[in-house]
Amino acid sequence: MNIVDLITKKRNGNVLTEEEIRHLVMGYTEGDIPDYQMSSFLMAVYFNGMDKEETVALTKIMRDSGDVIDLSGIEGIKVDKHSTGGVGDKTTLIVGPVAAACGVPIAKMSGRGLGFTGGTIDKLEAIPGYKTSLTREEFMNQVNDKGIAVIGQTGRIAPADKKIYALRDVTATVENLSLITSSIMSKKLAAGSDAILLDVKCGSGAFMKTQEDAEELAQLMVEIGKSDGKDTMAVVTDMEQPLGCAIGNTLEVEEAIDVLKNKGPEDITELSVTLAGIMIYMGNKAESVEEGMQKARTALEDGSALSSFRDMVSGQGGDPAIIEDHTLMPQSEFCIELTAWENGYIAALDAMKFGLASQHTGAGRERKEDDIDLSAGILLLKKRGDAVAEGEVICKLYGNNEEKLKKALEEIRIAIIISSEKPENTKLIKKIIK
Amino acid sequence: MNIVDLITKKRNGNVLTEEEIRHLVMGYTEGDIPDYQMSSFLMAVYFNGMDKEETVALTKIMRDSGDVIDLSGIEGIKVDKHSTGGVGDKTTLIVGPVAAACGVPIAKMSGRGLGFTGGTIDKLEAIPGYKTSLTREEFMNQVNDKGIAVIGQTGRIAPADKKIYALRDVTATVENLSLITSSIMSKKLAAGSDAILLDVKCGSGAFMKTQEDAEELAQLMVEIGKSDGKDTMAVVTDMEQPLGCAIGNTLEVEEAIDVLKNKGPEDITELSVTLAGIMIYMGNKAESVEEGMQKARTALEDGSALSSFRDMVSGQGGDPAIIEDHTLMPQSEFCIELTAWENGYIAALDAMKFGLASQHTGAGRERKEDDIDLSAGILLLKKRGDAVAEGEVICKLYGNNEEKLKKALEEIRIAIIISSEKPENTKLIKKIIK
Repeated sequence: MNIVDLITKKRNGNVLTEEEIRHLVMGYTEGDIPDYQMSSFLMAVYFNGMDKEETVALTKIMRDSGDVIDLSGIEGIKVDKHSTGGVGDKTTLIVGPVAAACGVPIAKMSGRGLGFTGGTIDKLEAIPGYKTSLTREEFMNQVNDKGIAVIGQTGRIAPADKKIYALRDVTATVENLSLITSSIMSKKLAAGSDAILLDVKCGSGAFMKTQEDAEELAQLMVEIGKSDGKDTMAVVTDMEQPLGCAIGNTLEVEEAIDVLKNKGPEDITELSVTLAGIMIYMGNKAESVEEGMQKARTALEDGSALSSFRDMVSGQGGDPAIIEDHTLMPQSEFCIELTAWENGYIAALDAMKFGLASQHTGAGRERKEDDIDLSAGILLLKKRGDAVAEGEVICKLYGNNEEKLKKALEEIRIAIIISSEKPENTKLIKKIIK
Repeated sequence: MNIVDLITKKRNGNVLTEEEIRHLVMGYTEGDIPDYQMSSFLMAVYFNGMDKEETVALTKIMRDSGDVIDLSGIEGIKVDKHSTGGVGDKTTLIVGPVAAACGVPIAKMSGRGLGFTGGTIDKLEAIPGYKTSLTREEFMNQVNDKGIAVIGQTGRIAPADKKIYALRDVTATVENLSLITSSIMSKKLAAGSDAILLDVKCGSGAFMKTQEDAEELAQLMVEIGKSDGKDTMAVVTDMEQPLGCAIGNTLEVEEAIDVLKNKGPEDITELSVTLAGIMIYMGNKAESVEEGMQKARTALEDGSALSSFRDMVSGQGGDPAIIEDHTLMPQSEFCIELTAWENGYIAALDAMKFGLASQHTGAGRERKEDDIDLSAGILLLKKRGDAVAEGEVICKLYGNNEEKLKKALEEIRIAIIISSEKPENTKLIKKIIK
């Protein structure tokens, strides 16, 4: 097959065969096709898209480019959860233990983060002693014994996606539905779970800015998952303002524990109950999503979810004392506050700007090789709709570089709108797609 | 400037500033921007195009990326001619001497060919002794003394275009009006002439398949030339069938000499008179194009054009005896014939297929590093509209590899349509744009 012909075919708006897509993707992954041909192909895909069959083919080819994990050694229906990413999203740390407490085995491999804050694995590293890397046997045993294990990605999961994503990132070819879908789903399908729940964010702090785009992405991902024989559902949720009150690694673990103690912020609790409820339903531990959500609420109220979190932490070598004493996790040297400049209501907390500011406190990486300051981040004392009086603290910034904190404060200043009128409520859970 | 932002800007359909285009083009030329970013940018341009201001900017930036030739040492108005390329197009070898014979100084730098046959410089190398490389002083003196010199491109003409074109060629980003225009015009504007005549081909054997596309390209190139202060005109001409009867290097020099002796095929003679007529008009040696064409016809009839060709050849060290004895040029070992398989009229001679077959006889290069067989090629004994009887020779194939000739014969077989009805005449000169 001639590569220029394949690029031309897509450029001219035609549909590629599975064989042609395999030739391109594997040729690129194996180094036979140069970056410059792949990037012009990807830009042609940006403009002309891929149909569902092409997207299915691309997803499966990327899935099969590396290891496909076998979790059959773990009993029960393994339910995976994936978020398309947002600001302050620490739900994995909550819904894992909640679902596990309700009998759903959680065998989760998570990633590190590039962007606003670290990924789940970075956050877990704020817990002293927590091992994010287990052997295959340790991992299986932990799930079978404790019902839950959360570790870093092992092996070569979808190396084709890894190479292509890195190229998309530097060639302005990220924003395409089929490419986004296949990138996420190839990794999820390789991760070995029986069922997949997708949390697709929409709004300022998310990849998909509108609910419409988010629903389209969610719908396609659900179809792709089902086409591979996996029970797949999606939730479209709001990401206009940060989720919960904490952004940053230590801060988010603290907040996750608060939610597990059933005293966390309302929005993150609501989302966690919804996600865990669906997982419990998908894991066949409830007859309906509603029953699953009721079980999730109970697990938060009766302490069983917190207990499951404790099992996870101690099982993986972490110090469960952090559950009662947050100061055992990395603490920052500096803390500065942003106060309200007038009386009114918080009308907006732009999630994207908060995310960037959080990154600039040191909580997130700008480049792969950057170190994360686990103690850094932002804590919101007010959320959208809250009343504030002039001089009242809206949020606190934590970190070990005072200059950076001051700059981040300036960025946050323009991310906040105070209005004289109370803003209308927005729905956090916008849609459930199955 | 962030390169991903610039790619995104074009991808989103926005107009780039001259400064942004310069940053991209020069960054790429100098090796600071990698191939993969340039190719995704080029594909974005393929889809979203460039407006006239962007095209002007791109052309001038590429022109200024290398040497801009100073021909002010040559007296008179220097008129350059450029063809967008076709099959059997040897007009430079004819219109140069014709215009020179009418007093227009011809100081032409030509290229080698990639494709169907060699370029003008390859063709001239079929003449024993002809030096395609002269020093600047020799070149100037030859034009001032003999009125004409045709040499290979010297120096670094538009290196940015060279690098970008090579990338476009392998990333399916050739076919864009602004990119084609700026590629051609950057080189023409750097070549130092005062006026430029463009021969824009349309039809099967040309880059532009339709007259409409060819006219659009011609119009844009004329505008770009004028925006740089150069008198610029264009002719849109037919390339459905090969031009003249000869395709190949030695064969085309032979045919050019035939035309200069005023006994060449009708179509190539007509086109040469038109192009030379316009050049004579642009060179201020005629009051109108019509008067220029009349002068061109006279130059063919009275032998002055042939004499000018002789001066060019001998002035550049070539053996003028070839004018009377073609066999002094490279001759092929084999010649095979294609005969008509039925009675009728030649309804089509697909130029593109003839071009490819000619390349396969050895007359053209498939890759830059390939050697050309100067003796190889195709000679048409019949052209579109001619009557043929079964068994009559339609064309002859020349070359030094009999196997290749036989394969090329098969390719030509399907390039020819014999019909029972005489086809309607098509116009060779479709439009003159000024």
